[in-house]
Amino acid sequence: MNTFGNIYRLTTYGESHGAALGGVIDGMPAGIDVDTDFIQAELERRRPGQGILTTARKEADRVELLSGIFEGKTTGTPIGFIVRNTDHHSADYSTLKDIYRPSHADYTYQTKYGIRDYRGGGRTSARETLCRVVGGAFAKLALNTLGVEFSAQVSQVGNQPLNGTPAERQAQMEDIVTRVRAAGDSIGGIISCTISHCPAGLGEPVFGKLNAALAGAMLSINAAKGFDLGGGFNTVGLTGSQMNDEFYTDPQGNIHTRTNYSGGIQGGISNGEDIQFRVLFKPVPTIMQPQHTVDTEGNEVEFTPHGRHDPCVLTRAVPIVEAMAAMVVLDYYLLNKTTKLCH
Amino acid sequence: MNTFGNIYRLTTYGESHGAALGGVIDGMPAGIDVDTDFIQAELERRRPGQGILTTARKEADRVELLSGIFEGKTTGTPIGFIVRNTDHHSADYSTLKDIYRPSHADYTYQTKYGIRDYRGGGRTSARETLCRVVGGAFAKLALNTLGVEFSAQVSQVGNQPLNGTPAERQAQMEDIVTRVRAAGDSIGGIISCTISHCPAGLGEPVFGKLNAALAGAMLSINAAKGFDLGGGFNTVGLTGSQMNDEFYTDPQGNIHTRTNYSGGIQGGISNGEDIQFRVLFKPVPTIMQPQHTVDTEGNEVEFTPHGRHDPCVLTRAVPIVEAMAAMVVLDYYLLNKTTKLCH
Amino acid sequence: MNTFGNIYRLTTYGESHGAALGGVIDGMPAGIDVDTDFIQAELERRRPGQGILTTARKEADRVELLSGIFEGKTTGTPIGFIVRNTDHHSADYSTLKDIYRPSHADYTYQTKYGIRDYRGGGRTSARETLCRVVGGAFAKLALNTLGVEFSAQVSQVGNQPLNGTPAERQAQMEDIVTRVRAAGDSIGGIISCTISHCPAGLGEPVFGKLNAALAGAMLSINAAKGFDLGGGFNTVGLTGSQMNDEFYTDPQGNIHTRTNYSGGIQGGISNGEDIQFRVLFKPVPTIMQPQHTVDTEGNEVEFTPHGRHDPCVLTRAVPIVEAMAAMVVLDYYLLNKTTKLCH
Amino acid sequence: MNTFGNIYRLTTYGESHGAALGGVIDGMPAGIDVDTDFIQAELERRRPGQGILTTARKEADRVELLSGIFEGKTTGTPIGFIVRNTDHHSADYSTLKDIYRPSHADYTYQTKYGIRDYRGGGRTSARETLCRVVGGAFAKLALNTLGVEFSAQVSQVGNQPLNGTPAERQAQMEDIVTRVRAAGDSIGGIISCTISHCPAGLGEPVFGKLNAALAGAMLSINAAKGFDLGGGFNTVGLTGSQMNDEFYTDPQGNIHTRTNYSGGIQGGISNGEDIQFRVLFKPVPTIMQPQHTVDTEGNEVEFTPHGRHDPCVLTRAVPIVEAMAAMVVLDYYLLNKTTKLCH
Repeated sequence: MNTFGNIYRLTTYGESHGAALGGVIDGMPAGIDVDTDFIQAELERRRPGQGILTTARKEADRVELLSGIFEGKTTGTPIGFIVRNTDHHSADYSTLKDIYRPSHADYTYQTKYGIRDYRGGGRTSARETLCRVVGGAFAKLALNTLGVEFSAQVSQVGNQPLNGTPAERQAQMEDIVTRVRAAGDSIGGIISCTISHCPAGLGEPVFGKLNAALAGAMLSINAAKGFDLGGGFNTVGLTGSQMNDEFYTDPQGNIHTRTNYSGGIQGGISNGEDIQFRVLFKPVPTIMQPQHTVDTEGNEVEFTPHGRHDPCVLTRAVPIVEAMAAMVVLDYYLLNKTTKLCH
Repeated sequence: MNTFGNIYRLTTYGESHGAALGGVIDGMPAGIDVDTDFIQAELERRRPGQGILTTARKEADRVELLSGIFEGKTTGTPIGFIVRNTDHHSADYSTLKDIYRPSHADYTYQTKYGIRDYRGGGRTSARETLCRVVGGAFAKLALNTLGVEFSAQVSQVGNQPLNGTPAERQAQMEDIVTRVRAAGDSIGGIISCTISHCPAGLGEPVFGKLNAALAGAMLSINAAKGFDLGGGFNTVGLTGSQMNDEFYTDPQGNIHTRTNYSGGIQGGISNGEDIQFRVLFKPVPTIMQPQHTVDTEGNEVEFTPHGRHDPCVLTRAVPIVEAMAAMVVLDYYLLNKTTKLCH
Repeated sequence: MNTFGNIYRLTTYGESHGAALGGVIDGMPAGIDVDTDFIQAELERRRPGQGILTTARKEADRVELLSGIFEGKTTGTPIGFIVRNTDHHSADYSTLKDIYRPSHADYTYQTKYGIRDYRGGGRTSARETLCRVVGGAFAKLALNTLGVEFSAQVSQVGNQPLNGTPAERQAQMEDIVTRVRAAGDSIGGIISCTISHCPAGLGEPVFGKLNAALAGAMLSINAAKGFDLGGGFNTVGLTGSQMNDEFYTDPQGNIHTRTNYSGGIQGGISNGEDIQFRVLFKPVPTIMQPQHTVDTEGNEVEFTPHGRHDPCVLTRAVPIVEAMAAMVVLDYYLLNKTTKLCH
Repeated sequence: MNTFGNIYRLTTYGESHGAALGGVIDGMPAGIDVDTDFIQAELERRRPGQGILTTARKEADRVELLSGIFEGKTTGTPIGFIVRNTDHHSADYSTLKDIYRPSHADYTYQTKYGIRDYRGGGRTSARETLCRVVGGAFAKLALNTLGVEFSAQVSQVGNQPLNGTPAERQAQMEDIVTRVRAAGDSIGGIISCTISHCPAGLGEPVFGKLNAALAGAMLSINAAKGFDLGGGFNTVGLTGSQMNDEFYTDPQGNIHTRTNYSGGIQGGISNGEDIQFRVLFKPVPTIMQPQHTVDTEGNEVEFTPHGRHDPCVLTRAVPIVEAMAAMVVLDYYLLNKTTKLCH
């Protein structure tokens, strides 16, 4: 269950404080130009330490591509990649060995496996998501040749919707996060994503609806707690007559919808309009405040984290949302090629 | 992609106006007592024609179990089942042959497959969901032996949260739906579901988080457009210190959380608390009002549906939400048995 | 695990003496003409009761197609089908309830599931293979549009290779089987299969080699015990210089091999030459002779079967070998469409 | 399709002359002691350069384990591993760029992908199998705790069955291989494998029979061309009365069979007896003799390989056969845990 996808498949491994994280991309179409700068740049987008809004951890996060590429092009064979962990201080984490931190995965992992790598969250660390970004970067390289584009952004922090120019939005976010950080607290929010120029026809009824795949993909991201498509929960009060997306024919003879409450997906299949969805993220559970919890023996203890603290992961989650979306779209693009015998 | 699940797997077939719908349940544990009355009763819960709130179509929906059961118990071999279609009037639908109805799947199916069974929505009809209910009923039979329970209900219709006793909630809903029906319109809403007594340890990191599986399952239901877990979108304004679920040890020595903002899942794995999630449903797109659209040649046309009309499918969707949840939980229960070599 | 295939997928259900057998074909390409006479004719090929060589059981084996077809063409949605069981005499089998027949699956099923439907072998009956024939028939319908052809025949009965005209081969086989039947015994043999005009490029390295898929498919057939490709075990004494298939260019400019020891597959991928393989079948374990065995309590007992007896199933297995091969080839043809982004 | 298995899953990557080979083991049960010396020793068994019988290439083949292990035990999270390529001389291979070598995968890869890494066979190199050995070594570590053992050996070289003590068998093999090498030729043969103490009940009817899984696994190995179970092709002349394996109860009250023509599997499910199968390997196609073939333009050319030459890979394939068998058995052991709700 550490594999994502049907045809385009990403399999990942790695713990926060192990030797490395990495993965295997299988099903990458052959003959695609590999832009390694782009891949590294995508990784940089999720890296912490980019400003006041993120943790100070300096992660190198250099990805090494190990196979599947020949003379700058993909060969259709699997692409192995590895990112070495270089910045670990296991000593920092020894105090966590015997404690179940509130709203972390400590308790559930221990219950499930009977053993856990408690250093830095082990497999549950958000460092795992850098493998997703690599998988998403290759998917984007393939999809870019078809013109498909992915654009996610933080649209709300806590109760505060972000509006205006990018600089204004950034200022609004910094204002909130600075206050939350000062309180030793954390805050969540919403990321909105648009997929443009997605071909019509992607999505596999019944259980493999494109929106189902996107929802499953997004809810697999650390701290993600909700998903909606198109107008989503905000349009729950509208009636059918208000929400139905009427079709029309544009001057080029292409069929479009006048509105897009459907969020680009109808009956689980893309209709060629922009695909629009939102992902809800809870506040990260690590806060710089004393909390009550229990130890592994069940004794109640008080616990105060120390060390690095990232009060809001939304900015770093933006490229992850895009990456997961890109992997879903490429996977379903490839699946859709099997719908007819010849096309 | 008409198969759902990993170990406990449901594969379905069938169109609204074909000969039959049905499916195959694979991975059903051996030795479970089969209560056929319960299965049929679950099907009745999703049947239309139960009152003013649903369409008048009289569907017999008698399920016939074809295999996998011997002397009243499951044998571990696949359970085939079939539900014959008896109430079809294909003539009703011939006018739909050349039209793409707004916010239906007509256009996307035609684009994807180059052919579609336009009678009654074909494969996209909500009749497909009765196979899910059968699959869910068997999952419940297995899970009931472990004490797991599923309870979903309509919690909001349009903008109106439902409150009070069941009778009061029913009255609130009928009031809204009656008005919407009179206007020839349709309305959506929210279904909330609680899974009680779910064992801790279910969920497969990283991509197979239990919440990811639930989200994908729910978004695969017709007209579902959103999902959230625990407090969900309603708690977006809370901080980590407000939302963290502190652990404590109860008098029996069991570890629990004082609050349940996590919705019973931490790090993608069930923690033994109630699993709580919501599913957003859009208004059904069939409304009794004239609408503009295009025909299959791209010509703009006006279109008014006639015939049966179900202005709000929320009541019928309740058992479907439970069924999908039950299939996910049983599947992940069985997956979790493989986590350790012996237990 | 009652599903076969990756993209083109057959899921089956049914016991020998249950209500019905059937299945779901998923991933059938849209727009293929459905020749129902051909499908029924394929079923007839595996039917017993066609002469002295097979059992006298009169099975109707009428397949009913339930979905996925509209106006004579496939729609891309799943094809449900059902074959009712009409000729069962459960009373015949009650004596088997407490006995583990030698070289049958009685003991292993009981051990695995703790329960078994002992009537006529239940799920282990060769009647299960009729669902494979239906799945194979649809695959052939799709592949026929590409010119791919499947031709299997019995090439050896016991130690006796069959040679000559079809009538001579039939006479050779009848001679052996008549003697075996008279002795109340049974006999196995070898089926050879050729796939002609298979496109080059099918097969997915590393684990999904086309020969691996064919081997797995063939060994899943009841009583199959061996598989080899090309020259197979018969050419074990040859050296590389004797077996290497040299390439040449034909007058049309197409690349071919002068010999075909590779059996049409190189590096796990079809090379455009005829694919040739053999499948070994053991003698059916039901013989009309007294045998020693144990009952379910472990007591040693003597046991003599009575009733219908099919001393050699090779003839009936021929269409099953073709069916499995056809499903593999269509599945891999569809998979291969995903190798490049556009072709 | 570079993933093998259902629950216990190995995903691999890597080309002969790329940076590294490696993979991800997913589904490894938690809490198993990791004996790294054993894993490395298994790799040594498949290493070339061990004597006159194998190529002189000095491969280091040091495996680095990257994740999924904590304090010497598996944690249930995926195990990433990597083996760096250190001994590549790409210059050796530039002459192969434009040639399709007979009975290699050059032509089929080029046809399938439109691009290939021609250096040392790229992904088709037998170096790929070292990842299988790593996957198999972990499977053996888990299965050893249950007492399951795997023992394969070369049983035939060319037409020559090997008999006698290990030293005698080795001498017989060296004699043949020395002669073949002197002729610049190559030779194949047969590997026989026994799985001892395999629990009864493993195998998933219908398509997932244990013998089908083993056959598919073995035919996925480079140069494997055939598989048979139990007596296999050698017993094709026997009748049912000669081959049926009668059950008896041993003094401890356990049920066994007096003979084992079934090869330890009945109805696709292990019966607790030794599982016995054979795998046929063709001669490697690289021979030190001039051969006719075509170049990528279709021009006929003469071609003589030079460089390292391994005239018989059977010895090196022995641990690979065991590794694939171990992965199948562990996968099916874990699958079988889901057959009943509680055991």
